[in-house]
Amino acid sequence: MSGASYIPMSMKVLIVFAHPEPNSFNGAMLRTAEDTLRAPEFELRVSNLHAMEFNPVPGRHDFTSRAVDEVFSYQSEQMHAHERGTFADDVRLEQEKLLWADLLILQFPLWWFGMPAILKGWVDRVLAYGFAYGGGRWYDSGVLRDKRGMLALTTGGPASAYAEDGLQGSIETILFPIHHGVLQFVGLQVLPPFVAYSAESASEEGRERVLAAYAKRLRSARTDPTFPEVRLSDYDDDLRKRRDR
Amino acid sequence: MSGASYIPMSMKVLIVFAHPEPNSFNGAMLRTAEDTLRAPEFELRVSNLHAMEFNPVPGRHDFTSRAVDEVFSYQSEQMHAHERGTFADDVRLEQEKLLWADLLILQFPLWWFGMPAILKGWVDRVLAYGFAYGGGRWYDSGVLRDKRGMLALTTGGPASAYAEDGLQGSIETILFPIHHGVLQFVGLQVLPPFVAYSAESASEEGRERVLAAYAKRLRSARTDPTFPEVRLSDYDDDLRKRRDR
Repeated sequence: MSGASYIPMSMKVLIVFAHPEPNSFNGAMLRTAEDTLRAPEFELRVSNLHAMEFNPVPGRHDFTSRAVDEVFSYQSEQMHAHERGTFADDVRLEQEKLLWADLLILQFPLWWFGMPAILKGWVDRVLAYGFAYGGGRWYDSGVLRDKRGMLALTTGGPASAYAEDGLQGSIETILFPIHHGVLQFVGLQVLPPFVAYSAESASEEGRERVLAAYAKRLRSARTDPTFPEVRLSDYDDDLRKRRDR
Repeated sequence: MSGASYIPMSMKVLIVFAHPEPNSFNGAMLRTAEDTLRAPEFELRVSNLHAMEFNPVPGRHDFTSRAVDEVFSYQSEQMHAHERGTFADDVRLEQEKLLWADLLILQFPLWWFGMPAILKGWVDRVLAYGFAYGGGRWYDSGVLRDKRGMLALTTGGPASAYAEDGLQGSIETILFPIHHGVLQFVGLQVLPPFVAYSAESASEEGRERVLAAYAKRLRSARTDPTFPEVRLSDYDDDLRKRRDR
């Protein structure tokens, strides 16, 4: 093999999908993603949490063996399982998908300004201590810093309600705990979220327009600019921003 | 009965508790609350979600009868169940406790900048459309506007990491989606949160000090000032802040 040859890089995408009804706008968004990412430059895996009956509650069932029997210390048990390879199958399989992926998309309806419980439980259980963070591996030293992350969500209310001066507060503020506290925390390079406002009440034409926009965002997810990283070197030992730089 | 007589007002408190291990600092906080609220001016009920094996995932099991069989529209089914009284027992019992209470406390370890899934699912399922909001009943017109609400939580990191210039972002910003999007959304008058920083790694003496401070906060929860209400009259038909006042 010699000479310069064009090697198409394929982007591996994992969508974690958290809507109970396939025949919903969220379901249509998932089908749009499946159609769009069928192109040769992508590979797609989907964790359809409701269809999988994913259990979002942490417990002894997360592990095939325990470090300590008397008291349940979740982080200690997670570290123990990470070191021994003793995560239960449902957790382990999701961790493997995450390691496989170049891009993680969390897709969900915004419920109570956050992720539905089934998706929050995926985060709580899969992004385990030891596996996804710990020992100084977070933010720009994060385990997943070579991968990208993106939220794709629907809201009940209109975009105006999520503006800076909107009744609900800005969508940036509402999503901060997920962008900063989940995706960036584990090192992911975060793409701007795709937000479908008032999705269920939109006209047929409006929905088609949103789905087309979503397809476009997915196609450019490999090259679109991501948010600035959170740099640990900007913070001192008390984890406060340094004033000297 | 005549003349001025002092009638002690008792405050009914519902604590929704979301930690998997009783022998944790969260467990100690719960026991502190139980001891403190044993006083005659309080009545206490506790929803210990892990002990109850509360199911945080919405579904057809939320209802004893369905409005529509083919497609699962969660809000429509919730409204239907509210109108007919057909919520499943686990949801209905929590709704009854909430209506009974004068003060709702959500107590949890901060996981991934938010509520553990089991608690998020309590919010998703119990604060149902029709029952807790809908038809213009939100914020200062909210169903629960005669009650108070408060978060009581623990963090892994130190207070400095949650300062305005902290690595994690300010605790106010992190809790905004819960304060604004859950508690104030349904009309609750929100007390400042009680945050126990670095709880698990504190010294015995440090823990005792925090528990004493928590007891004090609980004793004054009836009279402590609450956050300013979100006033619907400040917003126009597009749900953006009016500029004319």
